[in-house]
Amino acid sequence: MISVLEALEIALRQTKRLPVELVPLLESAGRVLAEDVATDIDMPPFPRSSMDGYAVRSEDVRNAPAQLAVVGFIPAGSYPSFSLQPGQAAKIMTGAPLPPGADAVQMVEKTRAREEAAAVEILESVTPGNNVSPLGSEAHQGEVVLPAGAFISPGVVGLLAAIGKSEVPVYRAPAVGILATGDELVEVTAKPALGQIRNSNSFTLFAQVRQAGGKPQLLGVAKDNKNDLRNRIADGLQYDLFLATGGVSMGELDLVEEIFTDLGCEIFFNKIAMKPGKPVVMARSASGGMIFGLPGNPVSATTVFEVLVRPVMRKMMGFPVYQNQMVLATLTEPFTNRSGRENYAPAVTWFEEKRFLVRPLKSKGSGDIVTYAKSNSYMICPIHRTDLLPKEQVVVMLRPDFFYC
Amino acid sequence: MISVLEALEIALRQTKRLPVELVPLLESAGRVLAEDVATDIDMPPFPRSSMDGYAVRSEDVRNAPAQLAVVGFIPAGSYPSFSLQPGQAAKIMTGAPLPPGADAVQMVEKTRAREEAAAVEILESVTPGNNVSPLGSEAHQGEVVLPAGAFISPGVVGLLAAIGKSEVPVYRAPAVGILATGDELVEVTAKPALGQIRNSNSFTLFAQVRQAGGKPQLLGVAKDNKNDLRNRIADGLQYDLFLATGGVSMGELDLVEEIFTDLGCEIFFNKIAMKPGKPVVMARSASGGMIFGLPGNPVSATTVFEVLVRPVMRKMMGFPVYQNQMVLATLTEPFTNRSGRENYAPAVTWFEEKRFLVRPLKSKGSGDIVTYAKSNSYMICPIHRTDLLPKEQVVVMLRPDFFYC
Repeated sequence: MISVLEALEIALRQTKRLPVELVPLLESAGRVLAEDVATDIDMPPFPRSSMDGYAVRSEDVRNAPAQLAVVGFIPAGSYPSFSLQPGQAAKIMTGAPLPPGADAVQMVEKTRAREEAAAVEILESVTPGNNVSPLGSEAHQGEVVLPAGAFISPGVVGLLAAIGKSEVPVYRAPAVGILATGDELVEVTAKPALGQIRNSNSFTLFAQVRQAGGKPQLLGVAKDNKNDLRNRIADGLQYDLFLATGGVSMGELDLVEEIFTDLGCEIFFNKIAMKPGKPVVMARSASGGMIFGLPGNPVSATTVFEVLVRPVMRKMMGFPVYQNQMVLATLTEPFTNRSGRENYAPAVTWFEEKRFLVRPLKSKGSGDIVTYAKSNSYMICPIHRTDLLPKEQVVVMLRPDFFYC
Repeated sequence: MISVLEALEIALRQTKRLPVELVPLLESAGRVLAEDVATDIDMPPFPRSSMDGYAVRSEDVRNAPAQLAVVGFIPAGSYPSFSLQPGQAAKIMTGAPLPPGADAVQMVEKTRAREEAAAVEILESVTPGNNVSPLGSEAHQGEVVLPAGAFISPGVVGLLAAIGKSEVPVYRAPAVGILATGDELVEVTAKPALGQIRNSNSFTLFAQVRQAGGKPQLLGVAKDNKNDLRNRIADGLQYDLFLATGGVSMGELDLVEEIFTDLGCEIFFNKIAMKPGKPVVMARSASGGMIFGLPGNPVSATTVFEVLVRPVMRKMMGFPVYQNQMVLATLTEPFTNRSGRENYAPAVTWFEEKRFLVRPLKSKGSGDIVTYAKSNSYMICPIHRTDLLPKEQVVVMLRPDFFYC
């Protein structure tokens, strides 16, 4: 049985970045830039005031205080139609272009307006360039402002707009097929009979794939018979990433893994020293699609997704860092790990004062989705530790949910 | 001039949660539950094994070790067709239902299989209920498992599926109209002439609104003339939330604010002691739409969105907590704040060892989107502090981008 770290290393080593595609700027957020992007203009495109105040010729105010004639007002977004002559100033707002002739800005707090006289008294001298961002000082035309591999945050979307990128080269987002397996599964709208449960894994994984930036597609529920399974799995292998749940634990394992093999897939591992989630088949189809056979127990399936599948999706999408956000946190109560495996306990983590605190939830196991639904993170108990004590520092894997609950 | 905190309090006080709507389960992730949700089934719906091992009658193994006949195998997702008679055991997997007659599970590590004899030796005794989640022990039929106000994480989506909620009552996501204003603005696809810049604010805000869970709609660019502005602003007032950029700083302010007033809007404030972003008009239309007139400088517009608009959107969407994620971090280098305002400096924050570190970026001001695009957070310098020193503890507002860069 391999460790979680070994499984992750294998999974990432076998995963390739997806090809590059051009997407419209408005659809680019959340993706990763596939090429260096240069600006086609100087930024700023003019000498720009970084303060509200008065644009001046610095030589005019060398011996401050000095009174200047106010010959104009330049709000941000305007362009001055005049140039500054000796003895003149112009009222200017943050972000506005300096008028020709001006070489500095004095902030409004160090001036006294004489509006009745269309004049201003500059109370302190300025040196050339004071409170001015020179033309091209943020970036020169042709300069790379965003490197390949940059995450496209809203701020990056804005920068791409400013430099004229209406279409953006990004790594393709993976199309992810999701298949549930098991004779016991019924639809959400059905009332389960004795021994039946509703298919919930498909819905959880759909939301996880979307949260991770992928394009999920539900492929239904396969019955536990070889024909149905084989047909549906063959469908799933068309996707960049195929996730099947169920049919991988002892006694059933043969079925799903055997069909993967029959269909020409290469199997990389089928068991991990991880709790929850020991039985996990990772494979690759002949055409290059990545495959995970996840456990059927819902907490196991969702946890293995976070621990292994999300990093794989990040690599596909071109992220430079694959791993989820890990932090150290102070444990608030004792925790016992008798599994002999690395234990990913559903937990609530919060930041208080200067540190993170983490409370592992009292879960009734890998079927307990009522408790799991309250978590925003996993407390990781190392394989060799059986008893963690309050106030210990423990590693926590944050989920994006941390931002919202 | 009011403080950021006062502005936030006013903005939130004036904001109402949006009405409730039913959305399909697959579209519910990221939203907030508007009603308590009860389960329509017992969870688990049967006594469930929480271990891989052997289901037994505990009285049979009171004097362990004890040998039992193995009469069946119960994988997760199956339902046993037999019941356990005295002297019998059944091999059972985590998550599987106990057969009638069994009252406990002994974990596989404390057993020795005798497969040739269809028997198992149970090495240690168990008490009734050991390693079993009783029927209904996670939740009884009719019990509320998700309270109104719960964030719908992928785990919650799974739970909703399990309890039969194919449609989910959530607070409506705000429809957000986005209008840029300014004669100087040209399209992303155009090459700016002298004094022109490309409209980037609309794109940044579009991505921010979507990241915050809203439904953005671009309303184009308004010229700086009263007719055009008035028509487009009147359009914008139809939305749950209307964001205009530009036209609010000194000298231009009258125009946008005056039109808001002309159109029957109530103005709550028009200036905040915040850097960047002093000129901000907040208002409400006669029909109840919330309105922000944001500065035209791009770093100001995006920052005011994070500080004021995102919390307002969270309240509209029913989140119990409106504020963004704040942490304390150790400053890595000196920082100067001469603005006399609360300073939101674009920063890179990361977690290292046991703490957050934050490095404010060397920004050239509220127009410097090249630098801003590298940030994942804001370092907040209080209004009364002019010089922050390395190793000081400072407050940082994390953006969701923190998870990705």
